[in-house]
Amino acid sequence: MSDLTLAAAQTLVATALRTARERNLKPLCVVVYDARGALKSFAAEDGTSLRRGEIARGKANGALALGLGSRAIAKRAQEQPEFVAAVSHVVGPEALVPVAGGVLVRDGEGRVVGAVGISGDTSDNDEICALAGIEAAGFNGDTGA
Amino acid sequence: MSDLTLAAAQTLVATALRTARERNLKPLCVVVYDARGALKSFAAEDGTSLRRGEIARGKANGALALGLGSRAIAKRAQEQPEFVAAVSHVVGPEALVPVAGGVLVRDGEGRVVGAVGISGDTSDNDEICALAGIEAAGFNGDTGA
Amino acid sequence: MSDLTLAAAQTLVATALRTARERNLKPLCVVVYDARGALKSFAAEDGTSLRRGEIARGKANGALALGLGSRAIAKRAQEQPEFVAAVSHVVGPEALVPVAGGVLVRDGEGRVVGAVGISGDTSDNDEICALAGIEAAGFNGDTGA
Amino acid sequence: MSDLTLAAAQTLVATALRTARERNLKPLCVVVYDARGALKSFAAEDGTSLRRGEIARGKANGALALGLGSRAIAKRAQEQPEFVAAVSHVVGPEALVPVAGGVLVRDGEGRVVGAVGISGDTSDNDEICALAGIEAAGFNGDTGA
Repeated sequence: MSDLTLAAAQTLVATALRTARERNLKPLCVVVYDARGALKSFAAEDGTSLRRGEIARGKANGALALGLGSRAIAKRAQEQPEFVAAVSHVVGPEALVPVAGGVLVRDGEGRVVGAVGISGDTSDNDEICALAGIEAAGFNGDTGA
Repeated sequence: MSDLTLAAAQTLVATALRTARERNLKPLCVVVYDARGALKSFAAEDGTSLRRGEIARGKANGALALGLGSRAIAKRAQEQPEFVAAVSHVVGPEALVPVAGGVLVRDGEGRVVGAVGISGDTSDNDEICALAGIEAAGFNGDTGA
Repeated sequence: MSDLTLAAAQTLVATALRTARERNLKPLCVVVYDARGALKSFAAEDGTSLRRGEIARGKANGALALGLGSRAIAKRAQEQPEFVAAVSHVVGPEALVPVAGGVLVRDGEGRVVGAVGISGDTSDNDEICALAGIEAAGFNGDTGA
Repeated sequence: MSDLTLAAAQTLVATALRTARERNLKPLCVVVYDARGALKSFAAEDGTSLRRGEIARGKANGALALGLGSRAIAKRAQEQPEFVAAVSHVVGPEALVPVAGGVLVRDGEGRVVGAVGISGDTSDNDEICALAGIEAAGFNGDTGA
């Protein structure tokens, strides 16, 4: 069902965190889900706040739930806040966090094989790290831009 | 694990409430969490409304969850209401109340050792009492200002 | 609505914890609710495990919810486990923990003015501390025995 | 606040999974929490079932919540099933899975710095992998035996 192996997910996380350190970003949480929405790999850098991981999860879960990178969900939340608020109740316990940093992972044929969520710095920087990780793992990132 | 002892937390609560009585504020609820987000000490003055304590808890829990005093979360809620509304779903059952009065407790090296939440009077007055309590307990308050 | 003042609740907590220290019990969490089920006073001794406070709350909340000391609920849980399991879903987010240590606080006329929950040592010892605290505060404890 | 660094947690996970492969165990999920109950590191081997990770999380979360390795919780569940069933409602959304494989991570002074949960093979084998990982990371495992 899922082509996103643990080895690929671990390469993704390691590259995202190396990108964050090269740019001197704040400590990040990085989550990778497979295509089923099952947690595949996770890392919380030292110094992250208590629920930072849940925010990362909400970005990735929202992207998978709606089939849209969280940048697109953020745009929709500004245009139709009541829609996004309501949907956040029905997408499972990880809910939905409508800001950039939740990126769909697509294979060469465009199929969704998983999603990445990153939180800790600005949402633009979070997204840059997610894209670097996805590319290193041999997939294409879909931010919703 | 946590440097915020029960003795210190009780000093904090007693000072916050004495400050409130000296200023003739409305009855307050005061909550202290440790760094794990575990409830450490709590007091509801006589006359507080039915869910006043939950509001105090939401201020403190939000601060711990995001690593930001609730005054900063209030500012973010005005700029990006849909973000803060969504995050309130993913920070645990105590949720998040984005107004002043949720203050991080930091030790001399800047480490977060807990959080205080106060509700009952204006949020500015709630915050004044939190800061007085944190100082009496020998720590530094971080309001997010 | 409630005659259980903060001053009385704080006397209750202090006496319960002094009783625990005199007996060399494990570190305890003590919770006091008023008659409305609103949190009135709380203390977690240093060294309590992460969710020990939630267990104390579940004992007290169950007692208030059913109007029975948690020792009686424990007995019912052994006789009718499916009843108690089901009820635990409908008594609010603090749920219900069916072992001794959740004690109703009654005034001289038998009216329920609150409930105490203690967790950390054996449930029999937890209950002893609750009863000591309730007596010191000038009320009568109803364990459900 | 937590002495369990990401580097140590990643060593722990890698060693646990290497131990599993050397023994030809079924695919595992490995979760590491820090002392706050915040997710620190996670890996799901290829081929794990849809909610295997949630089982691993419930083992580790129960251990942290009660301050007991999940082997001890399993024993309690056989003696007092209604107690453990009830407590699983009050230990947070990850709940509690009362079988071996949830191991407390203690430092040299006995302080709890986190917890590991593993699920996928027999619970005895899951626990062997957890202990191997904890030792490789320089800590002591407390299984509740």
